Amino acid sequence: MTPIRLGMVGGGSGAFIGGVHRIAARMDGHFTLVAGALSSDPGRAQASAAELGIRSYDDFAEMARVEAARDDGVQAVSIVTPNHMHAGPAVAFLRAGIHVICDKPLAATAGQAAAIAEAAQASGARFFLTHNYSALPMVREARAQVAGGALGQVRLVQADYLQGWLADDLHSKQAEWRTDPARAGAGALGDIGTHAWQLAAFVTGATPAQVSAQLSSMVPGRPIDDDARVALRYASGARGGIWVSQVAVGQENALSLRVFGTEGGLEWRLDASERLVIWPKDGPARVLTRAQDRSGSFRTPPGHPEGYLEGFANLYSDIAAIIRGDAGPLDRVPGLRDGLSGMGFIAAAQASSARDGAWVEVAP
Amino acid sequence: MTPIRLGMVGGGSGAFIGGVHRIAARMDGHFTLVAGALSSDPGRAQASAAELGIRSYDDFAEMARVEAARDDGVQAVSIVTPNHMHAGPAVAFLRAGIHVICDKPLAATAGQAAAIAEAAQASGARFFLTHNYSALPMVREARAQVAGGALGQVRLVQADYLQGWLADDLHSKQAEWRTDPARAGAGALGDIGTHAWQLAAFVTGATPAQVSAQLSSMVPGRPIDDDARVALRYASGARGGIWVSQVAVGQENALSLRVFGTEGGLEWRLDASERLVIWPKDGPARVLTRAQDRSGSFRTPPGHPEGYLEGFANLYSDIAAIIRGDAGPLDRVPGLRDGLSGMGFIAAAQASSARDGAWVEVAP
Amino acid sequence: MTPIRLGMVGGGSGAFIGGVHRIAARMDGHFTLVAGALSSDPGRAQASAAELGIRSYDDFAEMARVEAARDDGVQAVSIVTPNHMHAGPAVAFLRAGIHVICDKPLAATAGQAAAIAEAAQASGARFFLTHNYSALPMVREARAQVAGGALGQVRLVQADYLQGWLADDLHSKQAEWRTDPARAGAGALGDIGTHAWQLAAFVTGATPAQVSAQLSSMVPGRPIDDDARVALRYASGARGGIWVSQVAVGQENALSLRVFGTEGGLEWRLDASERLVIWPKDGPARVLTRAQDRSGSFRTPPGHPEGYLEGFANLYSDIAAIIRGDAGPLDRVPGLRDGLSGMGFIAAAQASSARDGAWVEVAP
Amino acid sequence: MTPIRLGMVGGGSGAFIGGVHRIAARMDGHFTLVAGALSSDPGRAQASAAELGIRSYDDFAEMARVEAARDDGVQAVSIVTPNHMHAGPAVAFLRAGIHVICDKPLAATAGQAAAIAEAAQASGARFFLTHNYSALPMVREARAQVAGGALGQVRLVQADYLQGWLADDLHSKQAEWRTDPARAGAGALGDIGTHAWQLAAFVTGATPAQVSAQLSSMVPGRPIDDDARVALRYASGARGGIWVSQVAVGQENALSLRVFGTEGGLEWRLDASERLVIWPKDGPARVLTRAQDRSGSFRTPPGHPEGYLEGFANLYSDIAAIIRGDAGPLDRVPGLRDGLSGMGFIAAAQASSARDGAWVEVAP
Repeated sequence: MTPIRLGMVGGGSGAFIGGVHRIAARMDGHFTLVAGALSSDPGRAQASAAELGIRSYDDFAEMARVEAARDDGVQAVSIVTPNHMHAGPAVAFLRAGIHVICDKPLAATAGQAAAIAEAAQASGARFFLTHNYSALPMVREARAQVAGGALGQVRLVQADYLQGWLADDLHSKQAEWRTDPARAGAGALGDIGTHAWQLAAFVTGATPAQVSAQLSSMVPGRPIDDDARVALRYASGARGGIWVSQVAVGQENALSLRVFGTEGGLEWRLDASERLVIWPKDGPARVLTRAQDRSGSFRTPPGHPEGYLEGFANLYSDIAAIIRGDAGPLDRVPGLRDGLSGMGFIAAAQASSARDGAWVEVAP
Repeated sequence: MTPIRLGMVGGGSGAFIGGVHRIAARMDGHFTLVAGALSSDPGRAQASAAELGIRSYDDFAEMARVEAARDDGVQAVSIVTPNHMHAGPAVAFLRAGIHVICDKPLAATAGQAAAIAEAAQASGARFFLTHNYSALPMVREARAQVAGGALGQVRLVQADYLQGWLADDLHSKQAEWRTDPARAGAGALGDIGTHAWQLAAFVTGATPAQVSAQLSSMVPGRPIDDDARVALRYASGARGGIWVSQVAVGQENALSLRVFGTEGGLEWRLDASERLVIWPKDGPARVLTRAQDRSGSFRTPPGHPEGYLEGFANLYSDIAAIIRGDAGPLDRVPGLRDGLSGMGFIAAAQASSARDGAWVEVAP
Repeated sequence: MTPIRLGMVGGGSGAFIGGVHRIAARMDGHFTLVAGALSSDPGRAQASAAELGIRSYDDFAEMARVEAARDDGVQAVSIVTPNHMHAGPAVAFLRAGIHVICDKPLAATAGQAAAIAEAAQASGARFFLTHNYSALPMVREARAQVAGGALGQVRLVQADYLQGWLADDLHSKQAEWRTDPARAGAGALGDIGTHAWQLAAFVTGATPAQVSAQLSSMVPGRPIDDDARVALRYASGARGGIWVSQVAVGQENALSLRVFGTEGGLEWRLDASERLVIWPKDGPARVLTRAQDRSGSFRTPPGHPEGYLEGFANLYSDIAAIIRGDAGPLDRVPGLRDGLSGMGFIAAAQASSARDGAWVEVAP
Repeated sequence: MTPIRLGMVGGGSGAFIGGVHRIAARMDGHFTLVAGALSSDPGRAQASAAELGIRSYDDFAEMARVEAARDDGVQAVSIVTPNHMHAGPAVAFLRAGIHVICDKPLAATAGQAAAIAEAAQASGARFFLTHNYSALPMVREARAQVAGGALGQVRLVQADYLQGWLADDLHSKQAEWRTDPARAGAGALGDIGTHAWQLAAFVTGATPAQVSAQLSSMVPGRPIDDDARVALRYASGARGGIWVSQVAVGQENALSLRVFGTEGGLEWRLDASERLVIWPKDGPARVLTRAQDRSGSFRTPPGHPEGYLEGFANLYSDIAAIIRGDAGPLDRVPGLRDGLSGMGFIAAAQASSARDGAWVEVAP
């Protein structure tokens, strides 16, 4: 199956989320990255594209125009810029009939959002928003559980998303645009609050009708919210809450969801993302793992956590470095010596067991 | 940087570990798969290769010969066959001067292992063995902790690796060769015991001098060990143990390592693979996470677990399916509606907070 | 040291919290229960007192009067009645110069609370309120950590207290008074909300200045709150929240506290009550256990959880039943056979080790 | 119900296990301590007895004789001396017709054990051995699960009991007799190995037929085992292991049991002693808590962990100290101010909720 030709806007070298999108697009082999407007700085854009071996553009408008005209032009584009830079490229590519895969939140302002919506409705191309947490297998399973009635009628919903990395007045690249109202639109509320909001809606199938909120800036002088506490009322009578913070020291990326209904409850936490706890009204808690997953979203069998693939990939990347002759402390890659040692272990263990557990030397 | 051209022996459609190797090779973009002898069944080999869009060979010997002669032939080959089929292709490719990336254990018999060792020593190419668990970031950190003296002199080592999937007399493809002495060489001892053995050696930097073992076949009629309990003696005076089982019902893939020394202890568990617990002799337990990792082996920042990338990849794969027009229940992919909903949430929360927490309707 | 003579109001046979107070008073030997007005039903009061072997009164007023006049009268009284019945006995005993140990919350109405306050101020006797969670060792340690500056200036406080036992319209003795506004005053807010409120204040040393609340009755027809979500503002600028619920299905008694400050964070959970997690701003999480406790509030050494004492007490109670000749399935109490078996184990293990691990029969 | 009159041998002031036995005997009110030979040092024996307000004896033999002759003499005696001092008093009291409650292990030598066995068989009195872990509710539940067939036929049993407190060459009172072969008989094997042995037998209902052991002394110069690794063979064909250590740094008292059978598995850990994980062969893990306990061995309802009682007892002990006028940092005991604060919280939250979540001041 021929991979889909993919472009990217944003994601120059050193960017975080751009790199994530590239790995994700590559993982299952369905996409091949061929072009990009990787930075608003032309030099950085070109250098980044050269490193990736793709066509480079200085601006997204030109890229949309040129790629749409090429026979081998991009069929889809990933937009991984700061929030206020989503609408421009999204509209340009949608108008050019190219599918858009956009990082969240949709935009920095309501006006930008409306422009995207208008372009999407007018376009034959599709618009996707990468609320990645809702694509985790046990989150999909949680949704299936709620839809299947395991909780009865939902009464209570609580989503917490806590980070601590903005507890001080940071001025890193990642921090600066996120704490600038002009570029981000909203602070913690937009950056992680929209994840919590979408996650709750994804799992419960319902969106709140009313909110009561308290946004705070806990770091002196910060012009945007870094902590938000939002109470939720659903039309069904359900009640809920969202608490997001970027000043919760020690919390690396603590996303969790708790839902309680008339017949049961559930809890999912990102830091144990492959488990889903279900409490039936009667009987003990049930801990669902990938052995129980019905979403088909895991790539490895029971007990092999997601990091399993990354472990293999670490080996392959180290091996590539060795093959290429790169220097580095690469004695950490297993090889023949490990293999012979393992054979020695097997032989010694078999010999000992055959002699009823007598101690046996392992061949050196 | 041009990707390294990779071949594969074994790993036809439906295989488990072959798929894992392909994803891992693709993840960081360092390899591109170009050729394979994917199955001993020629029809299946060709169909699998066609699906992947690579050159196909009916047998590995021919593949080694032909690829070595091509200008654009494979530079490295992954061997993902059952244990007794490692030595043949490993020797062939090493002799052809092609690097070998081999799944563990090294071989099914000592004779096969010796053949590989001989070929490796004679070859200019490298031999790698994919003991993937030792490439997990917090395992590498564990090794650094021991090497750095956090535990003092190591006294006790215990590695457990428990699975339950062979608790019954299974006859699946995966089960059959693993329980056949001719093809596997050893049962649980070889399949997972060598992982435990290598993991303990990798972290502690030491290999036991003697073993005392009890191998058991708990399932009636099974001709190979499915449970092994091995006591270890190190030359240093340290003591240890390995317990591996494939009949421990409910244990999906429960690998863990505990090491205790004169100055501290540590525990690592695969089911919480991104945490490393260190007990200094005095003071509280310290729970190391990726924020403390020094191995450079994580792809995402603190709090973003390994599954984070797979979540994104799930989205990209669903998006590819939608773009290609594949049918399927793909309402689970977030899009414009989610984006507008998130914007509505931000606006309503900001309005409520500005009005001192008054309840505000969320735009539908 | 002579035990203090204790009386009790409420706590007739079948009561929950009365039994808890009696065990707690007995545990360290500082109190001896001598008198009680154990029920408003005279027959039940007398039967309950007879079972406990103590003096019985039909009403608390008479008890306060008579006991105050006796040379061997009660020196302190425990009040374990429903909320609306706290003020009457509290005032009576305080006026009689007898110390009062009262279950929480203080009262069902502000008027009752004022009456208690007035009596306490006029009395030479002391008034205690059994907010028991603040007496757990690691909660005391949490308070010491905050006071010692481990968190810097507190910014965020969140206390959750979730139960699920009132998810249906129950009519048990325990449920009825708690869901009756006249007897309870408040629902989840009073029953468990006051615990969360006091716990947060105890650990942080601060009380909020303002609240914004949403009380809900999730069970149709229930005349009192069974879910409450309260946002908190502290005079210091800190922000917080309390979420209490009695309809969170599957949550047995899920009390937790999270506090984040400028320099660190902490989390304590009742379901792992002997651990306190501290996140310094830099460096890994530290998990404090009783080995690190400085409160002097544990009765057993590191690693012996609180249930250790109850395990021993289970044996003593079973032994008492056996000695008294009570019938019952008491083969669960270890005895001589277990002791001889243990000796056989020691001897066989020593013999095997002396013979370099040879298998040795265990004497039957 | 009149309490049973209890005596004690050993357990003078400063002793650990003696204090534990006294609290346990007192907790449910079934025993009253009236006499003791609390120390082999007469002065310490008398001082300890005076502190407890009980009759004191200089030696156990005299105590057995005198108490047996008194109308109000002890009906049972707790023996809490070092291992080599169990047999003497056990035999004396059994011969005097007084029930014996003895700490484990039974004795330091096989000869002492035989003497106890003989006396027990000849006596009308009962002999109990306080293997306290088998009296924990979820251990009893584990036994019920195995007996009820939840695991099918047991195949694998593993009990680990790890401590780290003897990692150095200690010379405390607790360490000295435990590391002296004459007084202890065995080291880790006797002190904690017998617990692991009994726990495994209690839960599975079976005792191994053969052992293969490796005892080690990891601390230079220590004349007794401080680490023991024992492989087990059951007559049924089941296999197992016991690993006990007192040099596993950082492990406070890490006792765990894993059992796997043909139909399911279970795990219980002391550090989460109120949970029992059951893995059915099909379907997700079930986490049993006290809501599922059938043993009747819990004193508090679901969600109230064992430490709940100790928290209350901490309050009662602090209150006793205040009533007695003892000095000390006792501002940690909640009182009127906490009660009024809680009432203010309730009133403010109710007012805010009635005003649709408006922020309301909390009365100071």
